[in-house]
Amino acid sequence: MITPRSPLFTDLYELTMMQGYLCAGINKREACFDLFFRKNPFKGGYAITAGLENALEFLENIRFSKEELAYLKSLRLFENSFLDYLANFRFTADVHAISEGTPVFPLEPILRVTGALDQCQLVESALLNIINFQSLIATKSARVCMEAGEKSVLEFGLRRAQGSSGALTASRAAYIGGCSATSNVMAGKVLGIPLGGTHAHSWVMSFENELEAFRNYAEVYPKNSVLLVDSYDTLKSGMPAAIKVGLEMKKRGEKLEGVRLDSGDMVDLSRKARKMLDDAGLEDSKIICSGDLDEYAIRELKAKGAKIDVYGVGTKLVTAHGDSSLSGVYKLVAVRQADGDWEMKLKISDSPEKSTLPGVKQVWRISSAKGEMIADFMELDGEKPRFSGKISGYNPLPDYDKKSYDGAESAEPLLKPVMSKGEITARQPELEEIRERARIELKKFPPAIKRLTNPEVYAVNLGRKLMEQTTSLRNKKKPVNSLALKLR
Amino acid sequence: MITPRSPLFTDLYELTMMQGYLCAGINKREACFDLFFRKNPFKGGYAITAGLENALEFLENIRFSKEELAYLKSLRLFENSFLDYLANFRFTADVHAISEGTPVFPLEPILRVTGALDQCQLVESALLNIINFQSLIATKSARVCMEAGEKSVLEFGLRRAQGSSGALTASRAAYIGGCSATSNVMAGKVLGIPLGGTHAHSWVMSFENELEAFRNYAEVYPKNSVLLVDSYDTLKSGMPAAIKVGLEMKKRGEKLEGVRLDSGDMVDLSRKARKMLDDAGLEDSKIICSGDLDEYAIRELKAKGAKIDVYGVGTKLVTAHGDSSLSGVYKLVAVRQADGDWEMKLKISDSPEKSTLPGVKQVWRISSAKGEMIADFMELDGEKPRFSGKISGYNPLPDYDKKSYDGAESAEPLLKPVMSKGEITARQPELEEIRERARIELKKFPPAIKRLTNPEVYAVNLGRKLMEQTTSLRNKKKPVNSLALKLR
Repeated sequence: MITPRSPLFTDLYELTMMQGYLCAGINKREACFDLFFRKNPFKGGYAITAGLENALEFLENIRFSKEELAYLKSLRLFENSFLDYLANFRFTADVHAISEGTPVFPLEPILRVTGALDQCQLVESALLNIINFQSLIATKSARVCMEAGEKSVLEFGLRRAQGSSGALTASRAAYIGGCSATSNVMAGKVLGIPLGGTHAHSWVMSFENELEAFRNYAEVYPKNSVLLVDSYDTLKSGMPAAIKVGLEMKKRGEKLEGVRLDSGDMVDLSRKARKMLDDAGLEDSKIICSGDLDEYAIRELKAKGAKIDVYGVGTKLVTAHGDSSLSGVYKLVAVRQADGDWEMKLKISDSPEKSTLPGVKQVWRISSAKGEMIADFMELDGEKPRFSGKISGYNPLPDYDKKSYDGAESAEPLLKPVMSKGEITARQPELEEIRERARIELKKFPPAIKRLTNPEVYAVNLGRKLMEQTTSLRNKKKPVNSLALKLR
Repeated sequence: MITPRSPLFTDLYELTMMQGYLCAGINKREACFDLFFRKNPFKGGYAITAGLENALEFLENIRFSKEELAYLKSLRLFENSFLDYLANFRFTADVHAISEGTPVFPLEPILRVTGALDQCQLVESALLNIINFQSLIATKSARVCMEAGEKSVLEFGLRRAQGSSGALTASRAAYIGGCSATSNVMAGKVLGIPLGGTHAHSWVMSFENELEAFRNYAEVYPKNSVLLVDSYDTLKSGMPAAIKVGLEMKKRGEKLEGVRLDSGDMVDLSRKARKMLDDAGLEDSKIICSGDLDEYAIRELKAKGAKIDVYGVGTKLVTAHGDSSLSGVYKLVAVRQADGDWEMKLKISDSPEKSTLPGVKQVWRISSAKGEMIADFMELDGEKPRFSGKISGYNPLPDYDKKSYDGAESAEPLLKPVMSKGEITARQPELEEIRERARIELKKFPPAIKRLTNPEVYAVNLGRKLMEQTTSLRNKKKPVNSLALKLR
């Protein structure tokens, strides 16, 4: 349900280009494509990768059914020979990828696909759709959870999510980013994410009064009673009724799990509700807060001294409020020549920020002896950066300024082989592991790059050789000519 | 693929409340829920409804499978008796709805569900997910297409959409709002939406130079050649190569369909590209423009004199940039009493804008003799507004100010029966019809409410009786008591 099940999950032009490559006789040329994004979302300092498991599952299962081929035929765009070719199509390329749950930065390849040109082309739209959205939501979730600190964040977004799989996909990514549970039952069943929830206003309105509504709820759910107290008047009606029920539960040896606030001035209400609960001897009952929350709202609530134990975050998390898309792209970076060498490919745009970085690359993450992250280096595949003591790299954007870093101790290559000739080779980690990876890896980065607003820029560098090849290619720019440089 | 196929596509609390209603013995009470939104998206003056077909399809097919029941059992939240109840569950309620493609306004019920309390409750999350997102995107699309005027808008959003069904669902809604075609092949197959597309930069980079790339493309697609001209240098490289190919095509009796600009200063580039094409005698070749477009960008391009024939709009359309969710909610508005009368239900919130309008309602749209829309009236079901000459209504928000309107000539009830006892009763219109409806209906509203920025507010009123009942209920507000008013 998260992984699209049809190769028609693509833009038309992937198919028309595929047929074109076939006609031009270049479809089997070996190509290398990078998937990367150009800007951190939410004006933040990082992104968290997610979606790889679904991307690989999609690639491994590409088959054109008879019905799908019949539809393509009906478009009168495709030759029978091409449709026959599709009938036997299998994805047999290689994929390298950065593990899900890893902090990543602009211009770094998250995924690298190497194989026949037409195969690499076909999968562009699907890969982008899968990786863009999940990475976006995992990042949003990490930001929200970082602000929530030790408090739990529940994901309540289904009703406002963008589409049905949008909801399920968001639940997966939100969990990776650090949420503790979801309200989405399907996400519980399909992904094993813990479920959470309270009750709605309609529950309260279905009974004669709040007290009766709460009593009934506590009776059915003595172990999970969170009572929504804002249907009529939080402090004068909802809280007194909840406390009454809480005390009745206490008498029976049960515990009122908590109350949920969903409207009004959360700072004032949560403080007063906390005091009312404490005064009644219900110190163990929690205050859950929901309603238009995101990382900024949580920061403000905390700053103003709200007393909240659990945050219910919905709409703004699952739709990535503030930045409803990640700017991921998928670009041709090299083509294998007849002599076996890679020819680096570069796109130079009229919008300089839309230029690409050519060549088959690896991303190296350099850390200090203490395990703190210092900088990332993009290098040509096969090269390895020197990583001890003082090291130097180059700005990946034009100017290519040289920069130096102290205290380097070790370097980890982030792009790892995950698919060989179309078959998944690496064990895909459990969701729980991915979530843990995100939590642990993010800790290793300096706090300044994790700030909500005006974060420092984490240093992403080109290695010397890659920088030289890139500038040499750019300088060869001339009209009506490709920009190709044979890599020796 | 757009319509969710499982009743587990829901928030946990719908199921726990359902079991609670059953335990309290009130699950079969007849209830009425309204689905409505509180604010127009994008700071605009209207929304376009969409998603009804999928909502009804979902409702008609609710079945709990053994596997789903086994999962619910594993949660240790539900009694066997409740799971048995679910095993035989069918949705048998009635639904009234406003037709897809209709302009609607805040607080108006778009959907009204009447039936057993537990049935109405179960479907809340799914209905909201379906209607919220499609209405959001149909609205965004209508805004974009209105700015594009007579020019076509192609929807190119798949790669940045929120999830796989998010993309397909967005394609449907974008078409309703006025787009001419989509790049999403699945949307073509499943929904019959016309497909469109050009080629990517990778096509250009896969050949020795742009000229060779364009020649190859024109050879394979002599009837659909749109050439992407910004891979290296739009005016010095891309355009000259495209024109050369265009002239070669012309010699062969073919036509260069157009060129696509995807980066740089679109105003300047499009004007120069237009002149280059015209000077070469390729006046019929179009200029297609893409890259981060939305209604505001299109307005600016037009204002500055850009020469663009077709807009390719992707990310910002399908993810509803600027307002990534519609604030739709689903609220209990009435419960049938033992004596057969409806008891109106009202939620009064600590956030006044979160109050609800009670009662089983109809929405009437009042128009003038010329067919221009004057105002909408919400009335209690069974009441009908007087609609000739000068008419009066009341502000639906507290203050309930009286307002008058001149020139009323006819009134149309917008909520129509679409499902009876769980079975779809109304023929669902074709997508094409819905799209046409949106186009025609929107024309009937004053231009001032359709402005992109600072639109006038379209008048939505309460009829006198509904206003009186609502205020009477509000005035009865007292702690630890329901707000119920028996409707006589």
